[in-house]
Order: sequence, then C-alpha cells, then structure tokens
Amino acid sequence: MLYNSVEQKEKWLNIARYGVEFLTKYGINKQGNWYFSLDRTGQPLVQPYNIFSDCFAAMALGQFSKATGDRNAAELAVKTYLNILKRKKNPKGIYNKSFAGTRPLVNFALPMILCNLTLELEPLLDQQVVEQTFNNCVRQVMKVFYKPEQKLIYENINPDGSLSDSFDGRLINPGHGIEAMWFIMDIAKRREQKQLWGKAVQIVMDIVEFGWDLEYGGIFYFLDAQGHPPQQLEWDQKLWWVHLETLIALAKGFELTSRKDVWHKYELLHDYTWFHFPDPECGEWYGYLNRRGDVLLPLKGGKWKGCFHVPRALYKCWKCFQILSNS
Amino acid sequence: MLYNSVEQKEKWLNIARYGVEFLTKYGINKQGNWYFSLDRTGQPLVQPYNIFSDCFAAMALGQFSKATGDRNAAELAVKTYLNILKRKKNPKGIYNKSFAGTRPLVNFALPMILCNLTLELEPLLDQQVVEQTFNNCVRQVMKVFYKPEQKLIYENINPDGSLSDSFDGRLINPGHGIEAMWFIMDIAKRREQKQLWGKAVQIVMDIVEFGWDLEYGGIFYFLDAQGHPPQQLEWDQKLWWVHLETLIALAKGFELTSRKDVWHKYELLHDYTWFHFPDPECGEWYGYLNRRGDVLLPLKGGKWKGCFHVPRALYKCWKCFQILSNS
Repeated sequence: MLYNSVEQKEKWLNIARYGVEFLTKYGINKQGNWYFSLDRTGQPLVQPYNIFSDCFAAMALGQFSKATGDRNAAELAVKTYLNILKRKKNPKGIYNKSFAGTRPLVNFALPMILCNLTLELEPLLDQQVVEQTFNNCVRQVMKVFYKPEQKLIYENINPDGSLSDSFDGRLINPGHGIEAMWFIMDIAKRREQKQLWGKAVQIVMDIVEFGWDLEYGGIFYFLDAQGHPPQQLEWDQKLWWVHLETLIALAKGFELTSRKDVWHKYELLHDYTWFHFPDPECGEWYGYLNRRGDVLLPLKGGKWKGCFHVPRALYKCWKCFQILSNS
Repeated sequence: MLYNSVEQKEKWLNIARYGVEFLTKYGINKQGNWYFSLDRTGQPLVQPYNIFSDCFAAMALGQFSKATGDRNAAELAVKTYLNILKRKKNPKGIYNKSFAGTRPLVNFALPMILCNLTLELEPLLDQQVVEQTFNNCVRQVMKVFYKPEQKLIYENINPDGSLSDSFDGRLINPGHGIEAMWFIMDIAKRREQKQLWGKAVQIVMDIVEFGWDLEYGGIFYFLDAQGHPPQQLEWDQKLWWVHLETLIALAKGFELTSRKDVWHKYELLHDYTWFHFPDPECGEWYGYLNRRGDVLLPLKGGKWKGCFHVPRALYKCWKCFQILSNS
C-alpha cells in the first residue's frame, strides 16, 4: 500500500514480498480458507474460524499484485474474495457455537468489511459483482443495522431486521459503526451520492456523541444501547483503532461537507488520541488504555494489533488534508 | 446444597426441584452433553462446547439426589461424570479452534475441577474410580501444573510437562490456582495427608503474594509468569470469585495448619473483599471491579456469575470457623 500510494521504495516492496511469500506458502488450508494464526515457522496455530483473516489476506494480495503485476497474487486475491462471499451466511462455519434457530442473530461485521474490501479489490473484480456487493452492503449497513430512531448502528440484529432485547442484541461497538461510515463515505464519493455521504457524516457525529466518555474522555469500546451493563469486561477501555478510525471518519466527513461542527469534533478526537496513544519514548502507539487513559498493556503488537490501523489512518488523514489544503 | 447442609427448608428444596426439572428437560443434548446456555423458555442458545457446564450440572444433580433420594438424578449425575472423563482429552470437541499438533498445550482447568467434582459425587461413584481420579488429578495438579521453581501454577503446559514460552504458556490465573489448592486441601484432609495439605497451604500463600496488587490491593485476574503484558484485556480487574476462593483457601489453610501468617493473609483478604464487593444498598455482590476497586459492571449476575461462588464461599468459611471455634 505504501509502495503503491506513497513512494516506490524497493525496501518496502521487499518487505511486502517476504510477507506474501510466507502467507501464500503457509497461511491457507486446502479448502482455500486462511488460518487465524501461524507460529514463526509457518505452522498453523489456530484454525480458519475467523473470516477476517481472509479479508485482510485478500487486501494484502490485491495491493501486492498492483505493485508488481504478479498474476498469482491477483488470482488468489479474487479467489479469496469469492470464497468470502460464499461463506457469508455462516462465516464461522463449524466453529460457530450458537445453536441454530433459537436466537439467530445476524452480525454487522461482514457487510461492513465487504464495503471496504470490495473498494480495495475493485480493479481486480467483475464490475457487476462490485456494483451488486456495493448495493447490497450499503443497504444492509444503512437500512438494516443502522436504526434511525436510536441513531445507532447495532452489532447484531434479528434476521427480519428487528432489534433483539438481549446482551448481543443491545451491543454497540462505537468504533465499528464509525469505521463503517467512512467506508460508506468512500463508496458515496466514488458514486457521487451526496445524500448518502451526508447521512454517513451525521451518523458518525451521533455515534461519537453516544460513545464519548464524558468523565475521562475518549470513546468506549462497547456500550449497551439502552445503557445497561454490557457483557464485555473490557467495555470501558480506550482502544487505539477506535480513535484512529474516528479520526479518518471525521477528516473525510469534513472534507466532504465542510461542516464546522465536524471539524471541532475532529480536533477533540485529535487531542485525545495524540495525547494518549503514541509512545513518545520508543515510538509506535499503545493499543489499550484503561478508562482513565492510562496504558493498560504496554505491548505494541499482539493478537489483534498489527501494523495496520496506525499507518492506514495516518495515510488516510494525510490524504484528506492534502485535498483540503489544495481546495 | 443448602438443604443438605444448612437447614431442611421445603422452600429451598422446591427451588432446587424447579431447577432440576428445567435442566433435565432442556439442558442436555442427545449425546449426553450439556448446553452452555438456554433461553428462558429452555431452547438452547449455545452449543455444549464447554465441559464445565457438565461439571456444574453433575454437582447439582448429585446434591439433589442426596436431598431427595431421586434415583434418576443420581444416575444422570454419574452418567454425566463418566461422560466428562471420556471427553477429558479434548473437552471442547469439534469447537476446539487450536490446530492439532503445532503447540498442543494441556489445560489446567479440567484436572483441577475433577478434584472438586469427584469429592462432591463421591458417595455415588465406584470407590476405585474415585481413588484413581484423585491419584491422577492430585499428581497432575501438584507435580505437573505446579512448578516449584517459579512457585506458580500454570494454566497451560506442554504435553511433556515443560513450560511453553508463549502468551498461553506464560498465563497465570491466580484465583484458579488458589481455588485448586483448597480442593487439594479437602482431598488431603479426607486422606489424612498432612504433608500434602501443608504444601497446598504454602502454594496458596505464594500465589497470593504473586497475584496481589501492591498499588491498589486485591488479586489480579490474569498475570504473565515472567511479568510480560498478558493477552487478556481484563487482566487487571478484581473479580468476586477470585477473592472468595482465596478466602476459602486461607480459612481452610489456617484450620489445617494454625499458621499465623496464613491468618494475617486471611484478614487482609477479608478486609479487601468485604469492603469492595458487597452491595450495601441492594444486597448481593458485585462481580467485576476495575483495578482501583471501583465497580466496573453493576450487574449481579451474568454469563459467568450465577448464584454459586458467593453462597459456597460463605458456607465454606462459616464451616471452617465453626471447627476453629469448637477446637
């Protein structure tokens, strides 16, 4: 991505090549599903129970094929993408612990990430598939998971689109909803749908309002839509990616609408984020703060925090500000 | 349990009967495995991926059969117990997401809870099975998962008993190890193995020392044996059951050894626990505090907190103090 978009440094391309070689050699099982994790020698540690491994692999392969013209990478990206669409109805497959039928909730994550993944892989995909997926996902996100009455995006809903009054059904992940909104803004911008991006910007503002911790600042990780205690023990923590995705969403929101209140919200988030997350001594960012904003885990990488959200967000915000300063 | 051990109140027995009727009607699948959760009408929500559901069901049925002489309950308790022994090698069954072979860690929880479950069901079980299980579990807990060099009980170890230098391999759950030690004390007391109980008491003291938060008090939920950041985001929280199990372990430890340092540790834990967990206004106990001891979740029950640890611990401590005051 950096090689394609920032500067064609041979060093960056080599790092990417090592990654692609390792991943294509070890990362994928016989059914074409991507393992959740490998050890350093490449042996699988955790089965492919999580379809987001496949999404991130497809994105990486797409960017690599763009940089190098490597056909194998492009083909594997498309194959993985189509496999994701095929697994869409039961992404966890045999690792799904829910009992089918009793409370068959539908989860927000897949339609959301498909918006982004489809945009990322667009040059490699059949245009009809792209348009269909956009139409379907935008409808899912904006008409089904977004509830205008509550002004919130829900993580899980009943199959008929109604709300489920249960822990899972009341779950709000503010960072998730906000991230989805900048994916929607990207699609709306590409399709020149002003009304759609306007709506997405307003939803970001509403979710930030709902998710903001009035006492200590920052956006909560999880909340209950009705204000009940959530099930997640980590609910009150402040996570790096939540704040980075919000910065992207607000920067894009301001770029698209020039709304002053959006800019002020950006400044609020900027101050919180840059004050709390970067490590001034050793560089990189902390991932996990407690509610008060103190570092909870000093590690810079782990099971979920890779070299992804920080560079992507800095790049996206930079590009927004380039457009704004040229306008 | 209350009916059998405290007072033969008809009301308590009726509540237990409702529970047993509901559970035996809805709680179990065709293979004899117990679902992880049901909805209020009895329909299964989550598949039987967790063998501890089976352990707790067996304990409940054992106590109920003791109170009523109900043969069906006794039979189902024994059947469930034998099924647990059968599933011992791969308790999560098809829901196990680990890739077999790469890092085949063995988990502490099952040998530990089998100590307690076997004691609970002893009157219903074949004496040879009981002795075998005791021998096997005590050996597992004290010789394999307990590491004298580190003075710690590990949650996961390599199949050859060595330590794994990985997040899972370095994981310490102080409350878990402490709880296991009072199970061991019970077995040692029943078998009159003074050396064994002496060792268990010392291990409790060492784990409390290791797990105690010097800054804010209380025992951490998770720690890394080498002091690295653990993977669990909730690592620094203070949980009700951890502190209750420690009270039991220290009360039993003092009963068995009359060690003054054990009593002083009991007092320290008593003060922390009774100051922080009970809800003085509405009764019952909070389950989850943040590191500083403030209530993190105001709920009194949830996915993991049922009507179990609080009454069991109060009962066990009471019984210890009865013995002590009569001696």
